[in-house]
Amino acid sequence: MANPSILILAGDGIGPEVMTEVKKVINWFGAKRDVAFDVSEDLVGGAAYDVHGVPLSDETMAKAQEVDAVLLGAVGGPKYDVLDFSVKPERGLLRLRKEMDLYSNLRPAQCFDALADFSSLKKDVVAGLDIMIVRELTSGIYFGEPRGIIVENNERVGINTQRYTESEIERVARSAFELAKRRGNKVCSMEKANVMESGILWREVVQRVHDEEYPEVELSHMYADAGAMQLCRAPKQFDVIVTDNLFGDLLSDAAAMLTGSLGMLPSASLGAPMANGRPKAMYEPVHGSAPDIAGQGKANPIACILSFSMALRYSFDLGAEADRLEAAVEKVLADGVRTADLLGPEGGVPVSTSEMGDKIIEAL
Amino acid sequence: MANPSILILAGDGIGPEVMTEVKKVINWFGAKRDVAFDVSEDLVGGAAYDVHGVPLSDETMAKAQEVDAVLLGAVGGPKYDVLDFSVKPERGLLRLRKEMDLYSNLRPAQCFDALADFSSLKKDVVAGLDIMIVRELTSGIYFGEPRGIIVENNERVGINTQRYTESEIERVARSAFELAKRRGNKVCSMEKANVMESGILWREVVQRVHDEEYPEVELSHMYADAGAMQLCRAPKQFDVIVTDNLFGDLLSDAAAMLTGSLGMLPSASLGAPMANGRPKAMYEPVHGSAPDIAGQGKANPIACILSFSMALRYSFDLGAEADRLEAAVEKVLADGVRTADLLGPEGGVPVSTSEMGDKIIEAL
Ligand SMILES: CC(C)[C@H](C(=O)O)[C@@H](O)C(=O)O
Ligand SMILES: CC(C)[C@H](C(=O)O)[C@@H](O)C(=O)O
Repeated sequence: MANPSILILAGDGIGPEVMTEVKKVINWFGAKRDVAFDVSEDLVGGAAYDVHGVPLSDETMAKAQEVDAVLLGAVGGPKYDVLDFSVKPERGLLRLRKEMDLYSNLRPAQCFDALADFSSLKKDVVAGLDIMIVRELTSGIYFGEPRGIIVENNERVGINTQRYTESEIERVARSAFELAKRRGNKVCSMEKANVMESGILWREVVQRVHDEEYPEVELSHMYADAGAMQLCRAPKQFDVIVTDNLFGDLLSDAAAMLTGSLGMLPSASLGAPMANGRPKAMYEPVHGSAPDIAGQGKANPIACILSFSMALRYSFDLGAEADRLEAAVEKVLADGVRTADLLGPEGGVPVSTSEMGDKIIEAL
Repeated sequence: MANPSILILAGDGIGPEVMTEVKKVINWFGAKRDVAFDVSEDLVGGAAYDVHGVPLSDETMAKAQEVDAVLLGAVGGPKYDVLDFSVKPERGLLRLRKEMDLYSNLRPAQCFDALADFSSLKKDVVAGLDIMIVRELTSGIYFGEPRGIIVENNERVGINTQRYTESEIERVARSAFELAKRRGNKVCSMEKANVMESGILWREVVQRVHDEEYPEVELSHMYADAGAMQLCRAPKQFDVIVTDNLFGDLLSDAAAMLTGSLGMLPSASLGAPMANGRPKAMYEPVHGSAPDIAGQGKANPIACILSFSMALRYSFDLGAEADRLEAAVEKVLADGVRTADLLGPEGGVPVSTSEMGDKIIEAL
């Protein structure tokens, strides 16, 4: 049987650097654990624009549809700010999400013990925090039509459309309930049903999926503004949060920042099962392309390495191998190995991106 | 000349209790400072629904259009959760905002020295924090058409529309720049121009208003997700933040919670100048109706009292009187007077809503 396939799209900024470390990890698993992958690489974002004039070529899109998992680094950079909306680096990422139909974006917000001091929040508020934000990723205001800038009464009007169908809400709700069953058995759904009709439908459908299919999971509903407040006040009250594309964008970023571990957080974007039973999937770190430190060996590769760990778990059913990789990361942190972003006000000597990768390989 | 007029809409939950204390303060100013107002009262929210079957009657709406300032308590409660969207308590509030055309919602996020320990954030991250969020309040996805729940391909679809015209963006941008000039001279504008065309227009118009009318104010732009992160990480980097209705809803709530002073934060919603030169205006606390503690004398009246202080400042040009009232509040806090919400884990004996009001009057 052929090895499972992975397409690496390193992208822009620190993407290529952190991905180099992930490749070391992938190679280690092939050599030492007999867990081999067929790895190919291609371009996305500004890097693709520079070569093809588009942030994702049709050929790359077709490859992404065929592999078992895509690993993405990061996209974007100041150089591309002047580009037209339609060819900006972000469009490459959004095209992958949409055409692969990756509707369920899993964003763990986890506070690593060794790093609890890094949070801007008090230690007791975040220590041990482990929540999972499930963000709908293929619909809502990100993709709704009509959209654009039109002229009306002699002035321009900017328009976007929030649109959710029942089945779009159902499938992401199921994904949240399934996850909750394997975690703390609690789901909190967030919308603005007090203001938006799409929020009313969201709340009603999530409640129905719960009542019909997951009555044993504890379900609550919260307005998204109150959700933002509660995430800042007492994040540990949550287990799984399910929300739409736009609210998920803000809430998951806020939650990630609260942990103090932004350079550490991975994400998985999952779609429907393919013929081989594996879900369509893309894995990427939560952090961006960080153009200010790109190419200097300063970036923290852990978020990207943990994204590969999520791939082991969710695409390849290799939970034990994922545990092994996560334990190696925790060990290295416990040993005090720190990239520059993980140094507190006390300072210390940072390791480089590639030294961090090497230490993790050693710990494996 | 007739006294300036104020319409009090105490609303639901703790609204009436906290408003009772505001009335004491208004009376004090009339008696002791010769700053007299013509005060009338009426119903809004669930309280109005109970009497009129709608959360704001046409008569009350007409009165609100005529007075110099509206003071609003809070709306909503579990009793009204079952009501149809169109008559929910919130619709009363939204109708006031829309028909009075209160496009500029000022939400200070301020950390009171005496309360810095209450924040879930580390003290050095929030101590001395003083930012102003200017939220567009009459447009965007809150009011855009088309909206509703329709049936398409045999399933329901929830739809809302984000819509901003150039002139809507211009006027709220001006309001933010004007405020910045009287504060730290810095504005950060937040949107999702990387994903939404309405965000592209937003960014462009704010930049143009800046370049043409306020080149001396420092302007930056940030994606709203990064903004949520930065508010959690290092809120003191901001002076004035300007953003749209929906982002403003989440971001201002998060910012308010970060200060640890939720029961303390007022807001002002301002529109165009009336014939007498005063802006159309409504003032309300940021906190909600808190049905769980309503009627028990536990609520903190300070947010509502400080909302009246904003009225003194922004509607009546009585900055010195506003300073006096704010100083009285700070004195009472410094003296250790605390409502239940302001007691930390160490405990202590809380004062009641009306005792807090009395202490503030004494301090005046
Ligand atoms: C880069 C951008 C298009 C993207 C988004 O808005 O979804 C990012 O913020 C994210 O959260 O993955
Ligand atoms: C009560 C609700 C309609 C309102 C809003 O969403 O604007 C509230 O959250 C606020 O921020 O004033």
